[in-house]
Parts: sequence; C-alpha cells; structure tokens
Amino acid sequence: MHRRRCAAARHHRHSESEMETTDSEPETMRCISCQEDYDAGDAGTCKECYEEANETEEELKREIDDLKAKVAFLRFWSPPDSPLHAPRFLPPSFSDVVLVASGDSSSSDHHAVPIPAHKAVLVSRSPVFRAMLENEMEESRSGTIKISDASYEALRAFISYLYTAEACLDEQMACDLLILAEKYQVKHLKTFCERFLVSKLNWDNSIMSYAFAQQHNAKHMLEAALSMITDNMDKLTKREEYLELKTKDPRLVVEIYEAYLSKQVNTAAHKDSSLKT
Amino acid sequence: MHRRRCAAARHHRHSESEMETTDSEPETMRCISCQEDYDAGDAGTCKECYEEANETEEELKREIDDLKAKVAFLRFWSPPDSPLHAPRFLPPSFSDVVLVASGDSSSSDHHAVPIPAHKAVLVSRSPVFRAMLENEMEESRSGTIKISDASYEALRAFISYLYTAEACLDEQMACDLLILAEKYQVKHLKTFCERFLVSKLNWDNSIMSYAFAQQHNAKHMLEAALSMITDNMDKLTKREEYLELKTKDPRLVVEIYEAYLSKQVNTAAHKDSSLKT
Repeated sequence: MHRRRCAAARHHRHSESEMETTDSEPETMRCISCQEDYDAGDAGTCKECYEEANETEEELKREIDDLKAKVAFLRFWSPPDSPLHAPRFLPPSFSDVVLVASGDSSSSDHHAVPIPAHKAVLVSRSPVFRAMLENEMEESRSGTIKISDASYEALRAFISYLYTAEACLDEQMACDLLILAEKYQVKHLKTFCERFLVSKLNWDNSIMSYAFAQQHNAKHMLEAALSMITDNMDKLTKREEYLELKTKDPRLVVEIYEAYLSKQVNTAAHKDSSLKT
Repeated sequence: MHRRRCAAARHHRHSESEMETTDSEPETMRCISCQEDYDAGDAGTCKECYEEANETEEELKREIDDLKAKVAFLRFWSPPDSPLHAPRFLPPSFSDVVLVASGDSSSSDHHAVPIPAHKAVLVSRSPVFRAMLENEMEESRSGTIKISDASYEALRAFISYLYTAEACLDEQMACDLLILAEKYQVKHLKTFCERFLVSKLNWDNSIMSYAFAQQHNAKHMLEAALSMITDNMDKLTKREEYLELKTKDPRLVVEIYEAYLSKQVNTAAHKDSSLKT
C-alpha cells in the first residue's frame, strides 16, 4: 500500500546520522516513519506534529482496549470455548421466560425448542419486549413469547445478540436478524445487519436488496442499493428482478426512476456551475 | 502544547501555493498539519506516511464509536435523566434476588434497605456470586444476599457497576468498591478502582495506600505506592503513618526496606554499566 517514492534513498548508509545526511543534502529530508528520503513535493509533517499524532494514536488505542474490556465485562455467557455459532446453545441460568420460534415449519427440526432468556435482559434491549412484559400481557403471565415468521436458528442468534452484541452473519442470517431487529426495535442489531448487507451489495443483488430495504425500513441500505441501481440504469430493464418488481410493487420502480431523474438533474446542475467558474 | 519552531514561517503569504514556496525555498518544507515551515532538523514524515497515519486515526475513531455503541447497548438501565450518583436508585424490573448491606450501623439510615438485582447478572459478573447462587446455598434459597462490612451507598454503587460498568468515584468510594471487587472477584471493577487510586497517589497518602493495596491484593497500586515511598526514603521515618505501620504490621515496613535496597542495587548496576560503555 505504501509506495516508496525515493528509491535512491535506499543506498544511503544506515550508520549515517540524520544530521549528517541533512547537512550534505539540504534539499531532501528523511521521513521518521518510513525511513525514506523525501523532497518538498512529498512533504508531510514536521517532527512535532508527527510526535503529537503518535501520542494521539497511542491514546486512541488505549481507549479501544478499555472499551473492549468493558464490552467483555458487560457481555453475558460468551465462553471462549463455545463460539456463538456453535450448534450447542448454552441456556442462561435463572431464566424466567422462554421464546419459541413459531411459523417456521420448513427448514428445521428445532423450531419448537424453547429458548430460555431473562425478562430483565429482553426489556432492557427492546422497547417492544418492554411493553409486552411490563404490561402484564399474555406473554408475561405465561412466561412464553412466540416469535412468528422466524426460524429457530435466527431466533437463537437474535437472543444471543441481546446478551452479547455479537452474531455470526452470512447474508441470509443478516436478513433474518434485520427483520427481527426491526420488529422488536433493537436498533444496535439493525445497524449491525445493515452494515453487513451494504458491504455485500453488488449489481446482482441490488434490486432485491432495494426491495428488502424498503420493506424493512433500512434507510442506509436503501440509499446504497438505490445509488447502485441508478448508476447502472442502462442495464436495469433487462433484469428479471426488475420485471418481477414492476409486477409486484410498481411504486418501488417509480421511486427508482424518481431517484434517477433527481440524480440527473443534480449532475447537470453541478456541470453547469463548474462551467461557469 | 505544540510549540511553533519556525516563527519566520508566519510571514509567508498564505495565498502562496505549496509548490511556489517549495521552488523558491528548497531548504524548508511546509508541514501539512500545522501549516508552518520546517527544516531538516525538524523533519517528521513524508506525505504518504502522514496520509496513512491520518487514515489510521480515522479508523481508530470509528472503532471507538462502534465500541461505545456496543457498551451502551449492553448496559442496563442507565437513563440519561438519572445519573448513577443520583440519590434515587432505580430498581430493575423482574428482579429475583435482593442484596442487603449488613454490618454498617454507622453512617447511613439506608443500610437495611434491600437492593433488588438479578441472579443472572450477579453470576455473570462474579464467580463468587456464581458459586453462591448456583450451588443452592442459603442465599439462593432465601433470595437475600447479605453483604457484610459495606455501606448501603457502596453496595448500591457496586451493584450499579455490575449492570453498567460505570461508577462515580471519590477516594473513599474507590476504596470501598475495590474491597467489594476483591471480595467478589469482579476484576474489571477492581482495575477501575485501582487506576483511580493510583491517579490520586501522592506522598501524603502513599504509606496508607501502600498498606491498603497490600491488604486488598492490589498489585498495580502497591507497586506505584512503593515506588513513591522509596523515592522519598529520607522523609519516611518522620511520618506518623510510618510509626503506626511499624507497630501494626512490621512485615510491611520490612518490605519497604527490601524494595529500597533492591532499587539501590539496580541503580548502582545501571550506573556501572553506563560507565563501561
């Protein structure tokens, strides 16, 4: 990543002190960091600014270590020998509620297995669980919360995230968890999934991602997908997903065209003002 | 903090571009960060290293923001309108255990007030609570844990820390919490208190701090206090705390002298090797 500009500098004798080099060659200076010589065009910072920046970096690293220790302290049951994606789910001690994935009769044999949890943790992480459990609704009395339209695996990962702020994501799991996060208003998890999905965004999945983001109110993902689509408008109408979307939800297609138009207008205005200056 | 080395640089016209300055004055360069000129003796880094360092700093800051959000997510009940040191203690919902400060009949009227908590949180933060509650001891059956030799205020701050990883410290509170942290093996809190107490260390409190650290197995604080004491040995024997310690726990006094002797030997050896080179 770091290209060396002054190949000639490699020929300097290493035993030469900095001052000697400087005295004989006043037109170049030696970089403290990469140890190569540089000239005025490549000048970065003076020594003091370099040292200050170094101190700042050390401070930031210390802060990161402190915060990591805090996260480890606040996290529940995440023993190093049983990673979160391990098939064995560790039930927490003293649980006072169970969650059951209902409505997932397809993929998994586990779907009826109840997942133990703590009301205190659920209400502290989700305003929806708070309303459900603190207002003595059915779920609070029975001690069982049914989660519809979720697989056992997704629900397990969801509960695990509420305790640990960690999840092993692939694209399917990120979608499943984003849906649960949106439904139970767990903002931190939603952001986590959205970031992951944005990082996986490409032209092939952009139309699906756009529709998904729209449906589940994922603004950041929506913007990213829309931007990718409007950058490739010439190829848009040939795609199968486009035809599907036009049939299923034409409003979403209209919004793509509106975004494209607005982008064109902006680009034109920008070019116009560039020409004038 | 940042002294400017090149006062003359201030006289440069600001409208001058970097390249113009460079062409006319090849022997100095302009620092991108502080915008002052510098010469070879003050050379810091080249432009690429400066840009890399900048990127690194941005990345570290993003990581800090992410970790802070994680901490906020994992923390329990710390609403912004009721800071931790507020007199009103917010009892957590769905608690299944209470803690009572016993043996503190002195300062507070509150000492018999039970503090509600969750077994799941206590066992996740402290191996001592884990052994107590998971092994069906008296405390687990009765749902009441008596904490001896602690004030209500200290116990409240202790429990609050287990939920939030935060505490408002003064020197007294830091000592009280360190004792509880040591007793219940809450390492994170112990480190937190120890750091605070080390930051407050001075010659006047060094002997007391040394004895306290020794008693409660606070190694980092012990070292810091011992180092301060052995740096001021000429004043040591005149201090009242010294005479007290000599009567009460002469072994600790012996350890001071041993540390002093070892320091002298090390210093002599260092001087010796410096002379030889």
